[in-house]
Amino acid sequence: MTGTISTKESHVDVLIVGAGPAGLMLANWLSRCGVKTRIVDKRGTKVYNGQADGLQCRTLEIFDSFGMAQRAWTEANHMLEICLWNPDENGKLQRSDRIPDTIPGISRFQQVVLHQGRIEQFFLDSIKAHSDIRVERGVLPTSFEFNEAKAADFEDYPISVMLRTLSEEDATPQQRQQHQKLADGQQKVVDDGLFRSNLVADDTDDLIRAAEASSRNANEVELVKAKFMVGCDGAHSWVRRQAGFSLEGDSTDYIWGVLDIIPITDFPDIRHRCAIHSANDGSVMVIPRENKLVRLYIQLQTTNYQKNGAKADRSWITPEIILKSAQRILHPYKLDYAYCDWWTAYQIGQRVGNHFSLHDRVFLAGDAVHTHSPKAGQGMNVSMQDTYNLGWKLAHVINGISDPSILKTYESERKTIAQQLIAFDQRFSRLFSGRPAKDVMDEEGVSMEEFKRAFEKGNEFASGTAVNYDASVLVAKEKSATEGTNGTQQIVRKPQLATKLDVGKRIPSFKVLNHADARPWHLQELLKSNGRWRVIVFPGTLTESSNMQRFENLGAALDAPDSFIRQFTPPGKPIDSVIEVLTVHSGHRRDIELLDLPEAFHPNHGHEGWDYWKVFVDEDSYHEGHGHAYDNYGIDPSRGASVIVRPDQYISWIGEVDDYEQMSQFFAGFMKQQVAGKTTQGL
Amino acid sequence: MTGTISTKESHVDVLIVGAGPAGLMLANWLSRCGVKTRIVDKRGTKVYNGQADGLQCRTLEIFDSFGMAQRAWTEANHMLEICLWNPDENGKLQRSDRIPDTIPGISRFQQVVLHQGRIEQFFLDSIKAHSDIRVERGVLPTSFEFNEAKAADFEDYPISVMLRTLSEEDATPQQRQQHQKLADGQQKVVDDGLFRSNLVADDTDDLIRAAEASSRNANEVELVKAKFMVGCDGAHSWVRRQAGFSLEGDSTDYIWGVLDIIPITDFPDIRHRCAIHSANDGSVMVIPRENKLVRLYIQLQTTNYQKNGAKADRSWITPEIILKSAQRILHPYKLDYAYCDWWTAYQIGQRVGNHFSLHDRVFLAGDAVHTHSPKAGQGMNVSMQDTYNLGWKLAHVINGISDPSILKTYESERKTIAQQLIAFDQRFSRLFSGRPAKDVMDEEGVSMEEFKRAFEKGNEFASGTAVNYDASVLVAKEKSATEGTNGTQQIVRKPQLATKLDVGKRIPSFKVLNHADARPWHLQELLKSNGRWRVIVFPGTLTESSNMQRFENLGAALDAPDSFIRQFTPPGKPIDSVIEVLTVHSGHRRDIELLDLPEAFHPNHGHEGWDYWKVFVDEDSYHEGHGHAYDNYGIDPSRGASVIVRPDQYISWIGEVDDYEQMSQFFAGFMKQQVAGKTTQGL
Repeated sequence: MTGTISTKESHVDVLIVGAGPAGLMLANWLSRCGVKTRIVDKRGTKVYNGQADGLQCRTLEIFDSFGMAQRAWTEANHMLEICLWNPDENGKLQRSDRIPDTIPGISRFQQVVLHQGRIEQFFLDSIKAHSDIRVERGVLPTSFEFNEAKAADFEDYPISVMLRTLSEEDATPQQRQQHQKLADGQQKVVDDGLFRSNLVADDTDDLIRAAEASSRNANEVELVKAKFMVGCDGAHSWVRRQAGFSLEGDSTDYIWGVLDIIPITDFPDIRHRCAIHSANDGSVMVIPRENKLVRLYIQLQTTNYQKNGAKADRSWITPEIILKSAQRILHPYKLDYAYCDWWTAYQIGQRVGNHFSLHDRVFLAGDAVHTHSPKAGQGMNVSMQDTYNLGWKLAHVINGISDPSILKTYESERKTIAQQLIAFDQRFSRLFSGRPAKDVMDEEGVSMEEFKRAFEKGNEFASGTAVNYDASVLVAKEKSATEGTNGTQQIVRKPQLATKLDVGKRIPSFKVLNHADARPWHLQELLKSNGRWRVIVFPGTLTESSNMQRFENLGAALDAPDSFIRQFTPPGKPIDSVIEVLTVHSGHRRDIELLDLPEAFHPNHGHEGWDYWKVFVDEDSYHEGHGHAYDNYGIDPSRGASVIVRPDQYISWIGEVDDYEQMSQFFAGFMKQQVAGKTTQGL
Repeated sequence: MTGTISTKESHVDVLIVGAGPAGLMLANWLSRCGVKTRIVDKRGTKVYNGQADGLQCRTLEIFDSFGMAQRAWTEANHMLEICLWNPDENGKLQRSDRIPDTIPGISRFQQVVLHQGRIEQFFLDSIKAHSDIRVERGVLPTSFEFNEAKAADFEDYPISVMLRTLSEEDATPQQRQQHQKLADGQQKVVDDGLFRSNLVADDTDDLIRAAEASSRNANEVELVKAKFMVGCDGAHSWVRRQAGFSLEGDSTDYIWGVLDIIPITDFPDIRHRCAIHSANDGSVMVIPRENKLVRLYIQLQTTNYQKNGAKADRSWITPEIILKSAQRILHPYKLDYAYCDWWTAYQIGQRVGNHFSLHDRVFLAGDAVHTHSPKAGQGMNVSMQDTYNLGWKLAHVINGISDPSILKTYESERKTIAQQLIAFDQRFSRLFSGRPAKDVMDEEGVSMEEFKRAFEKGNEFASGTAVNYDASVLVAKEKSATEGTNGTQQIVRKPQLATKLDVGKRIPSFKVLNHADARPWHLQELLKSNGRWRVIVFPGTLTESSNMQRFENLGAALDAPDSFIRQFTPPGKPIDSVIEVLTVHSGHRRDIELLDLPEAFHPNHGHEGWDYWKVFVDEDSYHEGHGHAYDNYGIDPSRGASVIVRPDQYISWIGEVDDYEQMSQFFAGFMKQQVAGKTTQGL
């Protein structure tokens, strides 16, 4: 299978298998970092409707770092409030509570809903605007070889994959089409949403057999040699199978139906997110969406149908059956529809991959390493965040900026998140799928108070902002009890200088003003995902001479010919292209002239003059209020702090304003000294 | 010239001549209203750099009503502060004042800067997304006939225009190219910015002669019959000449140079908008722009060069001469550049058209009816606002919604604005071009205190939000002393019910929450430019029974089979397609169920269920504060008010919540009764 004389052969830095949200996020990262990338998908087209739809606060922050958030924010439906509906003492449905859908203050974005097809489109546009990378659709990997002898040399290509181009027919999944009765008596054809449901067996092997049998495709094969391969190819991951890894966990007996409809109803909260527990007929989750649509997750009473096991026989599941279940649960309110955009059904299962990486050369991300129920709107987000974590690390290793040792942090950071996600989902699914307790004596029932508390508590997790990476070469903090030791233990840091920041978490965002033009920016807006590390200096009030002295000391050290910034920046590249220094000072903009500050903080770019976009101030704005950044970060304006932030906005280190030595030592733990004359790609 | 047998002939509702910002705004309006439109421009390409760049608050509000503001807002440079620099008592340049560039609270947008080419691109994208209208470039109108006998029948085509397609060569203006010395000694070719300057004679007649002489184009002529023609063809307007109208006013002797450069300078405020008066060397205006560019408007000391009159001989004007002037004015600060994006020079002239319309069939807009100096960033804005005023009126007449009498309000409304603009510009130019006074005894000099006050006062005008249209059939308010009487004098209105709203001005915007999903929206975001009139009902606190009673009375009247909404809505069109009813109630969202309110306020759309996007509440939001709309509009929550808002967001009428009769009478003043079976276009 490793190619005949006629087989085309090519080399690539990163081969991405699967062009769903996880794969596209990775391609998007690599498009910004100049990495030679290919991305293939066995399907002939992208997703056009249905599928995942929830976007966490954190995902929107990430999108914004790529300049994509505004499109999502504008097009999406915004969910502001969750209404909880439960049976009253007579079993009649009543609204028992309203809680905010996003915890106020947690992010500048709130959770919104927009269907996966649009999100994939934003990625495709973004990738196209920044690179020549294009998704190759209808392309199937059919064989895999890994040369362990080459695994230790990160300039070599240990991975060999045969790619086969499918015929258009093979790349288009067979869908069962259904005739749908519209309210005016006309009929409409609706695709069977089950074709990508987990109630349906994987078709990868069928596709491989069909492709190999098809004489039309006989010559359309290509042998690709890759430095890295990333499997973003879903719950049935072909890459995972090649690596010999598996998903571990169980599925439950619960079967849920999903309808995307324009509802005709007298239920009062149809434009709110609702969790509805009926007395005896199961539960419904209402997710209002864009374009007047509403998604309903509807628990199905399988006992009526499940004669020989639901998985074996799914023919009983139709939109009409799902709607009837919803109608029973929503009684006495009425629900009907004339327009159904999409429907499906699924069985809840919760599983985590046993390994996320093979020799730090083959990685798995997204559904390939975690599957769970969709109702909490987590899946697409955690999947994209997997590759958001991985992308810059791959780019830095490939571009010769970082030592390959940083790649180990992918599994150590993301496997923990996957496990937390599954634990969250198990708890949430049990509470949501269970019958509500009739009273405190009803031990088999679910307490609606407990459910509400779980919802409120889950909201922080569900926002994506609670992610807290453990100590590693990239995160200078105390190790948890379960971990070993490593080099970063020696790095001196002083997290107490920024009491409201957590090393390991993403830096929260507050508004600061550009010193040169008084424009307010959210701090995160300054941290674009372009592969740069940042040292954010908070020197305090610069009219205090001790603060100015420390600031000038740091400036002198950073500007010295042998400073760590110069050591780690490839010769010929702009001084801010690997590590960018940003300043947020306190006090008043008008008391300080930008050009009086040390040059390290507003570098001279020669023909383009001074850099006016590096120094900011924590002050009141004319039109957008005061961000109170020092207060919100817990930094004392009379002492200040410096903060090292990763290219993915997670905090690595907190220390004294002028602790140049420890900053230098931190970066030396994983960065590569650049030598004049050595060529590097990208950045 | 009226065509031979072989001449192609076609019919169009609106022919737009000129595809600059004014013409594109009009095409954009008509693209939303289904009007058969053509737009031609004699130039072969759109503008790529230089030209106008300032965007007023009001222009951004208008862009937002078309869904275009976010792109401009994201790409533009935001100007927050104006710094005034003047000679101190020793004649040395000093920063004397800082004032906000946009008056805080005046709009949800602030003045920004983005070059005209991008703005034209946003229009082109918007027009393409909503219609089949495409700009026809390199197309020149060569003859015009107006059949007065057909002028009174607005279904007829009184206008005949011959269009000729230019060769690519003719459509590309000859530019003088210059070699520019870069700081590293290399040379760069820069186009001569003077080719569209007002120092250069108009080339339309040359183009017409060239086109007629060119045998290649002999057959590429077309006779277009139009109901309406709009001249958006600039200061040398061909349409204006055909109509027999002229610009009236004078030009001054001041000559200004313009440089768009990436500055290399130690001037501290180069990223602020600055007005710099030197003691004896003239003035500079600094306009920081996108992509690190800065625009400098530089007063030229013409006495050194102007031997035989500047207009006759412009060869002395080069980027080097302009830069040297700037260097003298900015002394002792240094200024240089390695990159110049564009440059030009102009002579300040202030002129207004004597007529804006011929028989309400041919209209003039933009530079065709007002020219002035560019430094206040007004020109492009007022030009776009001309056609923003005209577009919906044309569409409503063409679509049979309104009586043609509304077209008279174009000249009555916009000529006043043009006159105000010229008055503003004269005052501002005199103060800015004058030498600063040495002391209070120096009567020939300009008082810097007076200049600062003029700047502060001018800022409201310059924001575009001060526009206040006079009484007319479309604006129910007291006439000013200079006007006659008309029908709207009889309309009973009670502006005292909304003490902070002004009939005739655009409705200011504050945040309100959607009742059905608690999402905050700026009120103006609800007033999309789609041709709809709005009745905005502020019923007050609906838990007060008297308020609910008035609200229900209004709902019943609006819902009646003969209500004015039904009378003026074409049969078969949605009930909200001509007049949309929006509600903003006070009090608490949770005290009221949407579906308990009268159906007129949340219409039933049949297969799409209830309308959840018409009722709002003035309440605190989870994440975006409280808009205090009732307070900010000066409406008493215990009494309420109703407000009629035009399709362009200007306020027509303010009255009692339930004054159905007066609303009806207002609309009857200009709207056409729709009869079942009559076809209408668009909307």
